[in-house]
Amino acid sequence: MLNFNYHNHTEIIFGRERENEIGEILTRYNASKVLLHYGGSSAKKSGLYDRVISSLNNTGVAFVELGGVLPNPRLSLVNEGIELCRKENVDFILAMGGGSVIDSAKTIAMGVPYEGNVWDFFRNKMAKKAVPLGVILTIPAAGSESSQDAVITNDLTPENNKWPSCSTSMLRPRFAVLNPELSMTLPAYQTAAGATDITVHLLERYFTNDTSQDLSDRLIESNLQTVIKYTPIVIKEPNNYNIRSQIMWAGTLAHNNLFGAGRTGDWASHNIEHELSAVYDVTHGAGLAVITPAWMEYVMKHDLQRFIQMATRLFGIEYDAWHPDRTALAGIKAYRAFLKEIGMPSTLSELGIPSSKLEELADRATAGDTATVGNFVKLNKNDVLAILESCK
Amino acid sequence: MLNFNYHNHTEIIFGRERENEIGEILTRYNASKVLLHYGGSSAKKSGLYDRVISSLNNTGVAFVELGGVLPNPRLSLVNEGIELCRKENVDFILAMGGGSVIDSAKTIAMGVPYEGNVWDFFRNKMAKKAVPLGVILTIPAAGSESSQDAVITNDLTPENNKWPSCSTSMLRPRFAVLNPELSMTLPAYQTAAGATDITVHLLERYFTNDTSQDLSDRLIESNLQTVIKYTPIVIKEPNNYNIRSQIMWAGTLAHNNLFGAGRTGDWASHNIEHELSAVYDVTHGAGLAVITPAWMEYVMKHDLQRFIQMATRLFGIEYDAWHPDRTALAGIKAYRAFLKEIGMPSTLSELGIPSSKLEELADRATAGDTATVGNFVKLNKNDVLAILESCK
Repeated sequence: MLNFNYHNHTEIIFGRERENEIGEILTRYNASKVLLHYGGSSAKKSGLYDRVISSLNNTGVAFVELGGVLPNPRLSLVNEGIELCRKENVDFILAMGGGSVIDSAKTIAMGVPYEGNVWDFFRNKMAKKAVPLGVILTIPAAGSESSQDAVITNDLTPENNKWPSCSTSMLRPRFAVLNPELSMTLPAYQTAAGATDITVHLLERYFTNDTSQDLSDRLIESNLQTVIKYTPIVIKEPNNYNIRSQIMWAGTLAHNNLFGAGRTGDWASHNIEHELSAVYDVTHGAGLAVITPAWMEYVMKHDLQRFIQMATRLFGIEYDAWHPDRTALAGIKAYRAFLKEIGMPSTLSELGIPSSKLEELADRATAGDTATVGNFVKLNKNDVLAILESCK
Repeated sequence: MLNFNYHNHTEIIFGRERENEIGEILTRYNASKVLLHYGGSSAKKSGLYDRVISSLNNTGVAFVELGGVLPNPRLSLVNEGIELCRKENVDFILAMGGGSVIDSAKTIAMGVPYEGNVWDFFRNKMAKKAVPLGVILTIPAAGSESSQDAVITNDLTPENNKWPSCSTSMLRPRFAVLNPELSMTLPAYQTAAGATDITVHLLERYFTNDTSQDLSDRLIESNLQTVIKYTPIVIKEPNNYNIRSQIMWAGTLAHNNLFGAGRTGDWASHNIEHELSAVYDVTHGAGLAVITPAWMEYVMKHDLQRFIQMATRLFGIEYDAWHPDRTALAGIKAYRAFLKEIGMPSTLSELGIPSSKLEELADRATAGDTATVGNFVKLNKNDVLAILESCK
């Protein structure tokens, strides 16, 4: 196990109707003026918005609002939020939504006390200060509610919109309210895309070259088994509170990096997918559903043992001692079957990405200093292109 | 899943030689005068003491010392520590050892700012303030390094020495340095007793009546599988760093209550065992090794499904559809076999506890307001006596 520091100070406030406590929670965190940040109309339709406003009013917490966050959240709205917070002397940001809203809020939080362009933090600068933020989660997927990461789409200078992610410990929210009831109104496709994102957060950490990671291997497998078992059921039973609970809690644990402590993850699938989302605005989970199994098939021979472990322990596939490669392949096939069952795409054409653009995407994904992506296997542009070609 | 709040702010600093950073860590936590609290001679023999003193001196962190903590730590030494901290204006406590040292340090931390008798916190008072504390862990077992619990033996008024445990969030250490190398010099018996304690922390949480806990069930099983697989190996290979790492990290995760979030644990085995330790000063893990399997056999019929799940998922035992009770029993038998393999006792007589004293112990264990122990099954005095009788 590698040396590591792990410090997750996000308070989890989990359960039915917990959003009604938001006024008291913000008071406990000494918030005097709050930016309420959210997406489209779903928070209003579901009644969440009204309940939150009511709690803020009842406890006398002042607030200003900024809605309109889009999936793959935009830098232009972030800049608007920064200006608003400065003008209104906001001292706490409340994100109400899924990963896009939370990442937008995180970026505003870093931007408020910073004199330069907040996009600098997605290049080579580290944030030194940030306005504290809290979350009311509505979609189990990104895990951003207790992670230290943010992903933003640069719509202002699209030519710079590569590698749009940022990670620093001060981005961990102070608290995250997780009420599984809030996820009951999600359309099946969004539930499935969120679940896919959760599985890939776990798989990115699973595929490591660090040995002697049996404990975290097993913890990751446990979390995966839960999501793989229950997502097909929850799509049929969207109001099943107990199952919504399992998946929401799994989504948070999948990406707070507890199960990645002491090991190096891969992250090639995420890096490749972020380019699909940045250019074609595809749903992140749907993009991952296409890329990740194709990545698995491409890198399988690098460490057959790990794929065999995934097949046997995660999917309960019998080990074929004379054909270990068949065992490994059967594991990938089982993961593909799960994605298919929950309605996720398996080809780039289903995402509306034309074959003619694959080289450009491969180029973008490998545009960093080292010109490779991934740690389990370092992939160059030709490798990424081969993966993209395999899922046309 | 039950509603819950979970807030674990302990920073984990994990890996080889991390104790050499202790001066910098304490400086980062604004410690100006530290109480260095430890047990017997083992920290000095192993060189840990010298390395810590050297780091403190190099970084100019002032300190005073109080050694001599015994297993099942005593209230009399706690009082000595409280006086010393007050006299020397200590503003940070560093516990260097295992659960006994940490629990002694936690109790000192609560006692320093309190005008009354610190034992009040083990009765009906809640601490309102505590001196901050940090830990350098030497024994993976109690999980106290990031838990909010402390257990103390009242040697001053032994007639009051019942239910000697206390739990409050301010007892979570600010940081815990976990260097698995420090556990390499542990005698096999202590390694085994520590591992037993870890397994029982997990099992106490596993046995719940709350349904739809599949995710945390699986996470607990993962942690148990790791400890059960590797403890017999580490006893033969005490210097295996990778395996020591798995067990040390498992010990912390087993008791920081992440895997108990949203479910009610049992804790009867712990409550019964604390009385054995309080009266007969037995090693906590060894006492648990006797009590826990006997408790399992006594309560098995209360929820056969849970014992079947333990047998099949944790131990890989084949489900016997025509004799489910045999499947359940086979799981308990497998747990007994693990305890035997690592050299733990299975009877009270091995612990030096005479049969004539069982009624007194049962009486002590059920002396609380409700006169029962445990949540999975509420046991009265006669139930506890029957369990104790079954392991004479």
